[in-house]
Amino acid sequence: MQAIRIGICGFGTVGGGTFNVLQRNSNEIARRTGCPIVVEQIAMRRTNPNCNIGNTMTTDDIFEVANNATIAVLVELIGGHQPAMDLIMTAIKNGKHVVTANKALIAEHGNEIFAAARANNVIVSYEAAVAGGIPIIKTLREGLSANNINWLAGIINGTSNFILTQMRDHTRAFADVLQEAQQLGYAEADPTFDVEGIDAAHKLTILASLAFGIPLQFSKCYTEGISQITAEDVTNAEKLGYRIKHLGLTRRTPDGIELRVHPTLIPEKCLIANVHGVMNAVLANGDAVGSTLYYGAGAGAEPTASAVVADLVDVVRDLALDSDSRVPSLAFQQGALSDSPVLPMSQITTAFYLRMMVRERPGVLAQVTRILGERGISIEAIQQQEHHCEPVPVIILTRPAKEQFMNEAIVAIEALADIAGEVTRIRVEELDS
Amino acid sequence: MQAIRIGICGFGTVGGGTFNVLQRNSNEIARRTGCPIVVEQIAMRRTNPNCNIGNTMTTDDIFEVANNATIAVLVELIGGHQPAMDLIMTAIKNGKHVVTANKALIAEHGNEIFAAARANNVIVSYEAAVAGGIPIIKTLREGLSANNINWLAGIINGTSNFILTQMRDHTRAFADVLQEAQQLGYAEADPTFDVEGIDAAHKLTILASLAFGIPLQFSKCYTEGISQITAEDVTNAEKLGYRIKHLGLTRRTPDGIELRVHPTLIPEKCLIANVHGVMNAVLANGDAVGSTLYYGAGAGAEPTASAVVADLVDVVRDLALDSDSRVPSLAFQQGALSDSPVLPMSQITTAFYLRMMVRERPGVLAQVTRILGERGISIEAIQQQEHHCEPVPVIILTRPAKEQFMNEAIVAIEALADIAGEVTRIRVEELDS
Repeated sequence: MQAIRIGICGFGTVGGGTFNVLQRNSNEIARRTGCPIVVEQIAMRRTNPNCNIGNTMTTDDIFEVANNATIAVLVELIGGHQPAMDLIMTAIKNGKHVVTANKALIAEHGNEIFAAARANNVIVSYEAAVAGGIPIIKTLREGLSANNINWLAGIINGTSNFILTQMRDHTRAFADVLQEAQQLGYAEADPTFDVEGIDAAHKLTILASLAFGIPLQFSKCYTEGISQITAEDVTNAEKLGYRIKHLGLTRRTPDGIELRVHPTLIPEKCLIANVHGVMNAVLANGDAVGSTLYYGAGAGAEPTASAVVADLVDVVRDLALDSDSRVPSLAFQQGALSDSPVLPMSQITTAFYLRMMVRERPGVLAQVTRILGERGISIEAIQQQEHHCEPVPVIILTRPAKEQFMNEAIVAIEALADIAGEVTRIRVEELDS
Repeated sequence: MQAIRIGICGFGTVGGGTFNVLQRNSNEIARRTGCPIVVEQIAMRRTNPNCNIGNTMTTDDIFEVANNATIAVLVELIGGHQPAMDLIMTAIKNGKHVVTANKALIAEHGNEIFAAARANNVIVSYEAAVAGGIPIIKTLREGLSANNINWLAGIINGTSNFILTQMRDHTRAFADVLQEAQQLGYAEADPTFDVEGIDAAHKLTILASLAFGIPLQFSKCYTEGISQITAEDVTNAEKLGYRIKHLGLTRRTPDGIELRVHPTLIPEKCLIANVHGVMNAVLANGDAVGSTLYYGAGAGAEPTASAVVADLVDVVRDLALDSDSRVPSLAFQQGALSDSPVLPMSQITTAFYLRMMVRERPGVLAQVTRILGERGISIEAIQQQEHHCEPVPVIILTRPAKEQFMNEAIVAIEALADIAGEVTRIRVEELDS
């Protein structure tokens, strides 16, 4: 079979990593595909000091790659919305297959991109968009295809997981660890995307569509970051046998689909509670297979390149059959997508960890438990901690309750004269059902 | 697209599970494939009380299924060598695709089966042969296809892992836990296949071929069971910061391929050291992706059915393209298989845990360390344990050394007058490189 010619647009960390993996492992990859993958052209703003590109053709115009007739597959690694969207749509209209690592674009405009791909009989692959080198998209599209997926829970943002791990291991404050993460290059100068959960929400949106066969609907994802988590919360969770992780959670319920990113207490005995530092992991529960876990590096030049190149190998294997995509873009056939609604957060049921500052007066805990009880919220555990001066912190672990009732309860508790300031609320998941 | 008609041969645990998953999830599966999968015929010796097969056609002759012209895919779930081999070869010659869970047959006769499949342009899939519901075969054939795989380490036999977990958690003896495992149905009446590592060796043989592109060569796999592990060894390992796991390990070295199943000390901080009970996990290290882990149920009716049905979905998706297998059976193209030799155990380098009973005489430890030192074996740690009477146990943790030199050293140590009985030797892997 003839060589497959590809073009790479964007030659930063992931672009350079992709080029290097393709060069270094060219023999091993050709042993798998039966034909070589040749980088025909690279669109770059500046050279990448980690790559020796020899006399590979370069350009500073990404659209030159999309219009290069010798190129069969365009690899989009420039990121962001525009001009990435125009680039991908141009490539598709020109009959090129596309491999992308662009999670924001897929999560927010994937429905439109996949429709164009179907209309033009080309493949758009995006394994690198979620959890770096972990082949979680292939797993959901193909490996678990026998299952009704019940739920997924993922640590899918390395920056947040690094910060929470450091806060726990060294009893440090959020702001302090964030600064270190920025110095280490694990966090951006503006860390909002990572620590406020937007990046995780992009990835979770994609995973939910693959799991349940629903259109991508990023705007409906509930998103809450970790910037309000205190070292005290981390320690309290530990004493209760839990760890705080920034989880993306999506679950199918009779009423609709839960789609939410927020800090979560999970039992320390769970394997996923032991995923530390910048590592990622996704726990997937299917009705036949039960719980399965997928773990690996969620970012970095070569782990991400591993996913980009695996997509290229898939495209080449499909091209060898001279046909369009064997597996639908979102795992389910286009006509078979479901209109299950995404649930508003108020309709979701979880257990809760509550932390409140109480002025030590008789009766205040009775008032708090009455407020919870009136709304059908049962208490699993309550701890009043030793403290040198008023107000004293009180920790309550509840049984599962609907978010709506908890919202009402928190408003009522905060209105009590003997409660100082706001009530901290972190959701709790046992991850065993 | 028309329905795909399949035949199931063998209707025990996995056969029944496969039938039930296909029935229960028929809508979800058709949403993924675009066409229904219909069970046309079942070959069974007796009815399965867990299944309502309605008026599905049955037979007690498996070859009737292989010769049924309406059937496109034969699902072989009878296990064992014969008549499974004849059944699969008949189906292939009749132009049928085959899905099998038969690890022994693939590990020992897969080369022949895959050659017949290529000659007859049919697909033979076997995801269920390794680690039950974990899609590890798809991961190696497709998900990690960008990588030069460096090594794999797997807990791939649930019975052995259950026994070692119980020995550690409750400081119990091997024989005692084995008996309980037999009562719980986790171990067979004859447990040899599981506890002596033969089952794990079958699975590891398959994983190694997929990882490195070498022919299946089960006969060269080194196999050592867990029946000699004592509660004392488990406790000693714990004190040193390790856990004993029954690992299948395969590694590419400049000299050839390591292929070995044996009890292994691994650091307790490794995620895979925290895989407990009957659960399975495979750690895969690639040059681009680094270390990744895949965890889930390694056995049971529905987890195994999850893998069988995923293979069926793959076949259906390939058939929709009207072509033969898109991905080579052993991940690499047939002409690209490697003749890297499998290394004999004597040529393999690992660290070692040694336990020996020493009569408390001055100089004996000096003799032991001299014997090790003369063979270039360095000592990482040494512990002489308190004991009420002679001889006393001495534990030595060594740095990595070639097995051949360790074999010689152990012979020399056992010959010392002040050493009582045999030296216990368990290999140690750090799993971080």
